[in-house]
Amino acid sequence: MAQRKSKNFAGVVYGVEDFRVEEIPTPRPRDHEVLIEMDCVGICGSDVHYISHGGFGDYKLKDKLVLGHESSGVVREVGRTVTNLKVGDRVAIEPAIGCRTCRQCKAGRYNLCPEGVYCATTGHGNLCNFYTHAADCCFKLPPNVTMEEGALLEPLAVAVHCCRRGGVGIGSTVLVLGAGPIGLVTMLVAKAMGAAKVCVIDLMESKLELAKTLGADAILAVSGHDAQEDMVKRIHLLLGTAPDISIECTGAEACVQLAIATTVPGGVVTLVGIGAILQRIPITTALVREIDIRTAFRYANCYPAALAMVANGTIDALKLITHHYDLTESEQAFKTARYGLDGAIKVMIHCQPRNKNNPQRKV
Amino acid sequence: MAQRKSKNFAGVVYGVEDFRVEEIPTPRPRDHEVLIEMDCVGICGSDVHYISHGGFGDYKLKDKLVLGHESSGVVREVGRTVTNLKVGDRVAIEPAIGCRTCRQCKAGRYNLCPEGVYCATTGHGNLCNFYTHAADCCFKLPPNVTMEEGALLEPLAVAVHCCRRGGVGIGSTVLVLGAGPIGLVTMLVAKAMGAAKVCVIDLMESKLELAKTLGADAILAVSGHDAQEDMVKRIHLLLGTAPDISIECTGAEACVQLAIATTVPGGVVTLVGIGAILQRIPITTALVREIDIRTAFRYANCYPAALAMVANGTIDALKLITHHYDLTESEQAFKTARYGLDGAIKVMIHCQPRNKNNPQRKV
Amino acid sequence: MAQRKSKNFAGVVYGVEDFRVEEIPTPRPRDHEVLIEMDCVGICGSDVHYISHGGFGDYKLKDKLVLGHESSGVVREVGRTVTNLKVGDRVAIEPAIGCRTCRQCKAGRYNLCPEGVYCATTGHGNLCNFYTHAADCCFKLPPNVTMEEGALLEPLAVAVHCCRRGGVGIGSTVLVLGAGPIGLVTMLVAKAMGAAKVCVIDLMESKLELAKTLGADAILAVSGHDAQEDMVKRIHLLLGTAPDISIECTGAEACVQLAIATTVPGGVVTLVGIGAILQRIPITTALVREIDIRTAFRYANCYPAALAMVANGTIDALKLITHHYDLTESEQAFKTARYGLDGAIKVMIHCQPRNKNNPQRKV
Amino acid sequence: MAQRKSKNFAGVVYGVEDFRVEEIPTPRPRDHEVLIEMDCVGICGSDVHYISHGGFGDYKLKDKLVLGHESSGVVREVGRTVTNLKVGDRVAIEPAIGCRTCRQCKAGRYNLCPEGVYCATTGHGNLCNFYTHAADCCFKLPPNVTMEEGALLEPLAVAVHCCRRGGVGIGSTVLVLGAGPIGLVTMLVAKAMGAAKVCVIDLMESKLELAKTLGADAILAVSGHDAQEDMVKRIHLLLGTAPDISIECTGAEACVQLAIATTVPGGVVTLVGIGAILQRIPITTALVREIDIRTAFRYANCYPAALAMVANGTIDALKLITHHYDLTESEQAFKTARYGLDGAIKVMIHCQPRNKNNPQRKV
Repeated sequence: MAQRKSKNFAGVVYGVEDFRVEEIPTPRPRDHEVLIEMDCVGICGSDVHYISHGGFGDYKLKDKLVLGHESSGVVREVGRTVTNLKVGDRVAIEPAIGCRTCRQCKAGRYNLCPEGVYCATTGHGNLCNFYTHAADCCFKLPPNVTMEEGALLEPLAVAVHCCRRGGVGIGSTVLVLGAGPIGLVTMLVAKAMGAAKVCVIDLMESKLELAKTLGADAILAVSGHDAQEDMVKRIHLLLGTAPDISIECTGAEACVQLAIATTVPGGVVTLVGIGAILQRIPITTALVREIDIRTAFRYANCYPAALAMVANGTIDALKLITHHYDLTESEQAFKTARYGLDGAIKVMIHCQPRNKNNPQRKV
Repeated sequence: MAQRKSKNFAGVVYGVEDFRVEEIPTPRPRDHEVLIEMDCVGICGSDVHYISHGGFGDYKLKDKLVLGHESSGVVREVGRTVTNLKVGDRVAIEPAIGCRTCRQCKAGRYNLCPEGVYCATTGHGNLCNFYTHAADCCFKLPPNVTMEEGALLEPLAVAVHCCRRGGVGIGSTVLVLGAGPIGLVTMLVAKAMGAAKVCVIDLMESKLELAKTLGADAILAVSGHDAQEDMVKRIHLLLGTAPDISIECTGAEACVQLAIATTVPGGVVTLVGIGAILQRIPITTALVREIDIRTAFRYANCYPAALAMVANGTIDALKLITHHYDLTESEQAFKTARYGLDGAIKVMIHCQPRNKNNPQRKV
Repeated sequence: MAQRKSKNFAGVVYGVEDFRVEEIPTPRPRDHEVLIEMDCVGICGSDVHYISHGGFGDYKLKDKLVLGHESSGVVREVGRTVTNLKVGDRVAIEPAIGCRTCRQCKAGRYNLCPEGVYCATTGHGNLCNFYTHAADCCFKLPPNVTMEEGALLEPLAVAVHCCRRGGVGIGSTVLVLGAGPIGLVTMLVAKAMGAAKVCVIDLMESKLELAKTLGADAILAVSGHDAQEDMVKRIHLLLGTAPDISIECTGAEACVQLAIATTVPGGVVTLVGIGAILQRIPITTALVREIDIRTAFRYANCYPAALAMVANGTIDALKLITHHYDLTESEQAFKTARYGLDGAIKVMIHCQPRNKNNPQRKV
Repeated sequence: MAQRKSKNFAGVVYGVEDFRVEEIPTPRPRDHEVLIEMDCVGICGSDVHYISHGGFGDYKLKDKLVLGHESSGVVREVGRTVTNLKVGDRVAIEPAIGCRTCRQCKAGRYNLCPEGVYCATTGHGNLCNFYTHAADCCFKLPPNVTMEEGALLEPLAVAVHCCRRGGVGIGSTVLVLGAGPIGLVTMLVAKAMGAAKVCVIDLMESKLELAKTLGADAILAVSGHDAQEDMVKRIHLLLGTAPDISIECTGAEACVQLAIATTVPGGVVTLVGIGAILQRIPITTALVREIDIRTAFRYANCYPAALAMVANGTIDALKLITHHYDLTESEQAFKTARYGLDGAIKVMIHCQPRNKNNPQRKV
């Protein structure tokens, strides 16, 4: 109760290059919601895009918006009908809430709900001190999972979704295009799903080194000048075969083209990186090899698997975090993420003193 | 036995604009093969391309090639180990034979076999009098299925494969782009699979009229000048909703773009028409709506279903045949198909007197 | 508005052999609900079981219960947040409403929701004059679909679900065990999904005759004395092959055993009929042939497909209705259904004068 | 060449309790075959059954039979058309060879081929010195995989197949019933596929201890007297939830019953253990929870995944081997396996001096 009287500061974007940390009202949970005292919030590329471009993909900033959607916190109040959580529970927050009644929601694809709310896109985010959320979209963390790992479940859920969509399974050979945060978690999840070999490619050696450290079976540094044919050969050599599944995490046209050129006949190219709207795609190459191009947008029903992988130690995601900031330092945090300063991969903003809410400290 | 002494005339392409009907040797069946006295051979666009362009897609004519792969005939001799057929059986010939030992073949996707033989592409076709084929790739026709229908199983198998790949099922709303032979059989098969509504679009009103006659729930004539947004609206109006599955049968870039723009979030665009290699695709539109782009190349394990539909009367495919020619008139037959003379849809070449081998005459 | 002042009579079961038609309060719709003036209510075996046995499967009558869950009606009032329906809409009512927040609901399998409400099982049914229901679980009927057909969407949805679960598709050969209402609609739906051949078996010749009339490709009358081996042979002879999918609609142990014995290796036996809890199953036979035994419980996301089949004329379900009663004659209606009087298949109770709400009269 | 002149000793069963090691002719490879000098052959329960019962399941010994089908060896001669292997290659031998032309083979399910050959069942096994086999069914081992591991690919392939059939994936909770060799490899493979938690149950504590050592998240010792309800509760407690997938590896009726009782609604029970033909199954419990009962018979297209897991170190299968014997000691080897002497799990017979063919020695 006392918590609700505390001040509620938030990281708010007003427009291009206009970000402020300022006080906002503390919300009250509705019947099916919980009030969460926020702990960790990771910075995603989409957050950065609001500051640099005033929007992201089709979403344009219409009004001020609280940023943040890779988050964890502690339940401080529960709504009248909530049964799955209680005060004091440490939770990861799945930022997507469907309308629950449309065709997509009822078929289990709430990520495609046209009326759904998504933190920091179609609704305010949770880079703040106090935030309310639907209780069924909050996942209780076991004691051995830290608040930072709770926040990382969001990119991990993206990776679970795109690996599931791509059909990664035991014995798959996988190519991951891009060694940014999504590429790296995708590699981790592909390995956790039993992929025989995962090769990661990128332009930057430093990112590839991290990929190697995290467990990639092979890495390949490419430049913008490499001939596609050469890259295809090198990938096949590194994997010992053509990849069954290529997962495109950059959005770059050249990468989508490479993915199609290098994947095995009958294989799958999964697109998760968002780039230019119109891209030149070698569609006939895909067709005569019967390669499917599947798309992965956010996630649905993936948080439990992401949490399980972290909880049982299959994945050590903490190595992705390169920088830590307090909520008050959010502006600098966004700069670090935006410009990739100091080799930034995942930048974490802490709304609470670090480790305050971690009963079994790992870090 | 006497048959093998008969002369064996074949329709052979030697190069661009160089097609001849000439005598070739009569083959002998190997142990696992049957010798077939050919009856009907339908003309496919790929046959025409050999004459007009000297090849098709990646396949370039290296030597002279017997054309024809949409075919039926009568078994005249069986190899030593053949058990599924006997002399006198009327059969449809599936033109694809995999190597049977590669990864693709053993996984049931023999259409992707890199060593496979395909009539009139990686091997000679069967527009001739006598032809040998693997017995397990010949499907015995019941008495109520005509030789012409047997030949039509090939395009029907294409349609079965692309509808299966697209996930057409009971209650699906389907858009078919293109009202040529493949578009039309795809519409027929989608209806047979329980599609709630199928809309066919094309540039030509006359083809659309045939689509309507054959059972399309809706048709839409478009022109090259229509705005995509308008076409999307009209399609949604005709179907009462966005299509679950769009099946692209033209290969045209504008059609692939339209298919992605009009399909429901979470839906599927299936590509079966082959066009330009590099096409500008609205990849981000597909991604944020999680629309899959699936490809369908030939068919695998589709002949039995195609045959069943014809045998049980679900599909009346004969209406697709607009022209009939004798083997000796092949050159004119190819011209009719090539230039769409007299409203040609499917042109059939007869190596036998028509209906000679049809015990239950339908036509 | 006036309607709410009308009296609300309902068919209520109080216990074994204790059924009454009596007045109950007229409900008010909540924000997401609509008030429906009921029109047609079909009688299901489970309704009959409440009267004959005081329950059904695990569900035991604890208190009085309004029966009825195969229903249609007209919207008379809409809740504050309802957008998909308006007053005057004719609707079919899907009786299952999930909690919308549990794991099953969020994965699209709301039929398995442990907290869900199901008419005439975990909640009151709608054999009455006025009834409220979640608006998203009501499906607007087009003018050419009658109220009786609207009520029949419920058994059709059962059939859609079990055919989907069984993997029925183009070219499938299907065995349906049992020619009661569920067996018959399953046959209809299997045909609509493109099954090559459907054979229906039953003990009663009269039911099989109806199956034949409705479109079964083959029928087989069996007796309790037939040897399983003989029945297997006859089924294979009738279908021309072993069935790919056998759908068990009786719940009888002998039928489950026959289904496993007769299905092709790699095929599927789908169970939808509920019978004895413990049954002797030839599990090793299933295993060495790798036959899957799948189960189908109610339905999820099947009403749209069921409605589409009726609306586009693929299925003529009206022939299933053998008897019509007014709401006041409900007791006699249940007797007719319970004892199969006069060859009863589907018995329909009318809460409104028949055809009153059918703009395009079919019957 | 010299090798073919060597003597070829084999372990041959003549009938119940009649097993002999005796000389047999050395075969010559046909065009598509390789001649293999055998190295390791693991003993499977089916081998033991031939000695103890004169058959296995439906397979009854008609004539003398060379045992052995979990095997590895070195290629000594290649047939005329073989391209994937060369003399000196170390290979694991997949014992199943389909006819390649039937419906099952062409659909990728060659494990169901009615004409297929399977070592030590429908054809001689390879517990001998020289053996010929189809080259495409031999998998070349990389240097870091030992011959013993090559032989273990067979039970690993069983596990891959049953986990795939059960739908094990990232985040699955899995119950494995039985801690014999198949139960143990199934647990290993389920973990490798990303299962969140795997619980193994058995009657014997010693086997469960090995399961724990090998990586099981939870183990549960049960006795024949435990009430099903209690076991269900304990399993749910150990897993933290009901299992998504239960994999039955014992064939015991009580285990099949427990699997159905304990699995989550909408989950899957996979049967791989073969037991009594008719078993009392709680079929209604499965139905109202929509639990599927899937079966797994041998494997198809699973060797590559099994090999990849061993080659990349995901699975350490060597710990399963508890006993080693020379070919001449085969009789004692079978006794050890048959009576589980000295805690026998997997008993390995060596046709060559141990490690002779292992370039990178692990053991």
